[in-house]
Amino acid sequence: MALTVKPSSPRPPGARQIYEALKQQIVSGVFGVAGQLPSSRALANELGVSRTTVSAAYDQLLAEGFIEVRQGARPTVASAATNGTQSAPTLPRSNPSRLSAYAERVRSMPPWPAHVATASSADFRYGDLAPADFPTTLWKRALNAAITQRPTTPSYIDSRGSLRLRSALQGYLWRARTLRCTVNQIIIVNGSQQGLDLCARLILNPDDRFVIENPCYAMAHRVFSASGASAVPLTVDEHGLDTSLLKDIDARLAYVTPSHQFPLGGVMPVNRRMQLLDWAKHNDAYVIEDDYDSEYRYDIKPVAPLHGLGEHDNVIYLGTVSKTLSPTLRIGYLVVPESLQEVFASAKQLMDRHSPITEQTALAAMIENGLYEQHVRRARRSNGERRATLLRALQLHFGDGVSIEGADAGLHMVVRFKQLHQSQERTLIERAQALGVGVYPISRLYHPLPAGQVEDRLGLVIGYASLNTQQIESGIRLLATAVAQTASLRPACER
Amino acid sequence: MALTVKPSSPRPPGARQIYEALKQQIVSGVFGVAGQLPSSRALANELGVSRTTVSAAYDQLLAEGFIEVRQGARPTVASAATNGTQSAPTLPRSNPSRLSAYAERVRSMPPWPAHVATASSADFRYGDLAPADFPTTLWKRALNAAITQRPTTPSYIDSRGSLRLRSALQGYLWRARTLRCTVNQIIIVNGSQQGLDLCARLILNPDDRFVIENPCYAMAHRVFSASGASAVPLTVDEHGLDTSLLKDIDARLAYVTPSHQFPLGGVMPVNRRMQLLDWAKHNDAYVIEDDYDSEYRYDIKPVAPLHGLGEHDNVIYLGTVSKTLSPTLRIGYLVVPESLQEVFASAKQLMDRHSPITEQTALAAMIENGLYEQHVRRARRSNGERRATLLRALQLHFGDGVSIEGADAGLHMVVRFKQLHQSQERTLIERAQALGVGVYPISRLYHPLPAGQVEDRLGLVIGYASLNTQQIESGIRLLATAVAQTASLRPACER
Repeated sequence: MALTVKPSSPRPPGARQIYEALKQQIVSGVFGVAGQLPSSRALANELGVSRTTVSAAYDQLLAEGFIEVRQGARPTVASAATNGTQSAPTLPRSNPSRLSAYAERVRSMPPWPAHVATASSADFRYGDLAPADFPTTLWKRALNAAITQRPTTPSYIDSRGSLRLRSALQGYLWRARTLRCTVNQIIIVNGSQQGLDLCARLILNPDDRFVIENPCYAMAHRVFSASGASAVPLTVDEHGLDTSLLKDIDARLAYVTPSHQFPLGGVMPVNRRMQLLDWAKHNDAYVIEDDYDSEYRYDIKPVAPLHGLGEHDNVIYLGTVSKTLSPTLRIGYLVVPESLQEVFASAKQLMDRHSPITEQTALAAMIENGLYEQHVRRARRSNGERRATLLRALQLHFGDGVSIEGADAGLHMVVRFKQLHQSQERTLIERAQALGVGVYPISRLYHPLPAGQVEDRLGLVIGYASLNTQQIESGIRLLATAVAQTASLRPACER
Repeated sequence: MALTVKPSSPRPPGARQIYEALKQQIVSGVFGVAGQLPSSRALANELGVSRTTVSAAYDQLLAEGFIEVRQGARPTVASAATNGTQSAPTLPRSNPSRLSAYAERVRSMPPWPAHVATASSADFRYGDLAPADFPTTLWKRALNAAITQRPTTPSYIDSRGSLRLRSALQGYLWRARTLRCTVNQIIIVNGSQQGLDLCARLILNPDDRFVIENPCYAMAHRVFSASGASAVPLTVDEHGLDTSLLKDIDARLAYVTPSHQFPLGGVMPVNRRMQLLDWAKHNDAYVIEDDYDSEYRYDIKPVAPLHGLGEHDNVIYLGTVSKTLSPTLRIGYLVVPESLQEVFASAKQLMDRHSPITEQTALAAMIENGLYEQHVRRARRSNGERRATLLRALQLHFGDGVSIEGADAGLHMVVRFKQLHQSQERTLIERAQALGVGVYPISRLYHPLPAGQVEDRLGLVIGYASLNTQQIESGIRLLATAVAQTASLRPACER
């Protein structure tokens, strides 16, 4: 309460003052439209007054229509109270001053679709995990131990991250991925996104080119494009990136997902791998190997990573725990060539000093005592069951009406509907939405969208890791209804 | 154990195989020089063999001199075993391919001094906090509650950070700093360093100029310089940045610490503040207000931030919990103008999606229930006692032999020794180090180092937040010995 509570103020504010101050804040839009006010208990604590005093102020605001109160929830600003403004009125909104070329590129990108969770029955969004799969008890225990074992002096650490976690990951990468490296080559980052951003900043100039899969992981496309470099999109088939297309292409880096192409699911065979590494060697370019979901393999054997395959150290390996523990932890890791470890460490320090420590220590402990790999095995089993359920449901409701790609691994598959055309995409999404099912088209992952027999068929990326088997079954049943409804309408392009 | 443990291998490896595999790893430098091997228990778990089997392998390695074992610790690589190499020999070390201009700028910077904690009596390094000051129990409780109250689906959140934390900070900033903003103007970042990096990327082009204080916070200088823009260093006096020097300077941004200049401690008076904001308005430039330690004020009243003072919204405010909770949490926040909130949110998403959630939720809860501000008051009292002890000790051992700057606020002060010349800096540091005292010269914070009566005196930045009062007393006593020893020698430049 800026009006009343000053550190030197000897008397706590009364209900009238609190009411006046809150009213001014609400009207001036400080809480935003429909924003939450503090709970009466919290505000009483903050102001050093009794809860009764605060409640009296809130009652008055309620009576005058400034706030709305629902049982058990914090009061919210009434919709009429702010005239729809969200801005603090003291500062005039003005056009921003000239920003950097980077900022202009970021601005010119199409807005990233905000996710509104409206799917009541099943949301097949890729990237989400099931809350029940998170090892809450184990993680709590590891985190509490990490807080207790805090370093003797809270101070900044090596920008590459906790040595303990890097040592644990060194062993894990060897065991799980036959990847050999020193601890100094490992850099802990805030999720794979920061790893990609580090690569973009350190490798690409605005006049450079980069090779990227088409279709691809959209956030990789965005982060490399934001550097100002130009994308060279290359076609992906059932064996991943078509490396024969690399010939005569001059580019500084190639971004690939060789273990399980995102989104199409192909595994790159060894001849293509060698072709890619050869190309990189002769072009003095780097290969970024995004190994985002290699923990999940069902009917097929693990494939060794690109890293370590070639004779030249120009592969940057990228791993994450976003698919095994949670994307909200924001823990990923780069394995960089020896020759790059110093510049990556310096850049990471400039970017944010280092990643938070406590969660690094907790993860290190879980890897050391084997609990992480135990958890991964359990998650693989759960997702194997989801996958089998999904395949069964697709067979049951669609039969030969769909083609399925990339189901051997990972946490998603691509489903194309033989009876639906690309132009009917919007209709299908809306129909599915109306039935409570969230679906996400593959078209958004193409840059550019190619024309062809397969690509003209409407395709969806079906993520299943956040759903239980009942949700998957009912979701696919409802999706079949939506598909039938869409097929019975004229194509959307004619509407 | 890459050689023996394959997922399909039906038989667990024997001691001989483990010995062979470990030996190869050690010789090839996988564990690094003097690196730790897994504990026998952890390795046994990983390999699915008995601990006796692993111990037999370790015994053989010990007998052959590959490893060293100390009671109760994990085995380490014997120094002779790796021939001093830290690199995995499978990949030849080669010169890196061409990197970006940004990477070349990062590379050309002088290496950031690695901190080696050798101070046995007292380390006056600025930035560290005392472990005892960290509210371990409260934080654990808040973190455990945050894990339990995890969102129903673990998925990515708004790139600006947790709405709950931004709402809590909105209230906190108003109460503590009379700063008014909407929740959308607040962006949670990984410590203030990421906030500075975001500003550098979004505002500065390589051919731009930026105004910076001299002396200044070195990591700010580095991150703005890394953008390729040129620094315009302006002199600082006891009232902070000398804003009269801004006249005719064309620059895109000015980085300032108006509440408590780092490192000299001056508070910028209102006429200078208005001059700075006027300059920014007329130059279409942004002012970055780094409010890094405003929680710590001893004899002086809080000063309202620059943010909200002017009529034009071109101030970017930067706050952090690194000085109140811990730098290892990596939690900071930007308050950006309304007109910039979208581009900052987009850039933060490209950089690392968003900051980790659990700790944001924990901090939000601590702010909501008043425990954060309670903790800040307690930390302020503790640091007030340290500060008083330090001032008394300086008076006792140096009397008029030193001048003290910036002691009214923050967690450090600048001490200049009247009898020592700048050229004796290295000698003093070495003498102090030999007595077990870590001291850090102010000269490193000047870019460039000016010549002048005051600046020619040897000055130290004395951070006191990580020490107890006994350590402060004995540290200053020992420092007095080191100063006397240094003064009795010829100046270092003549040696």
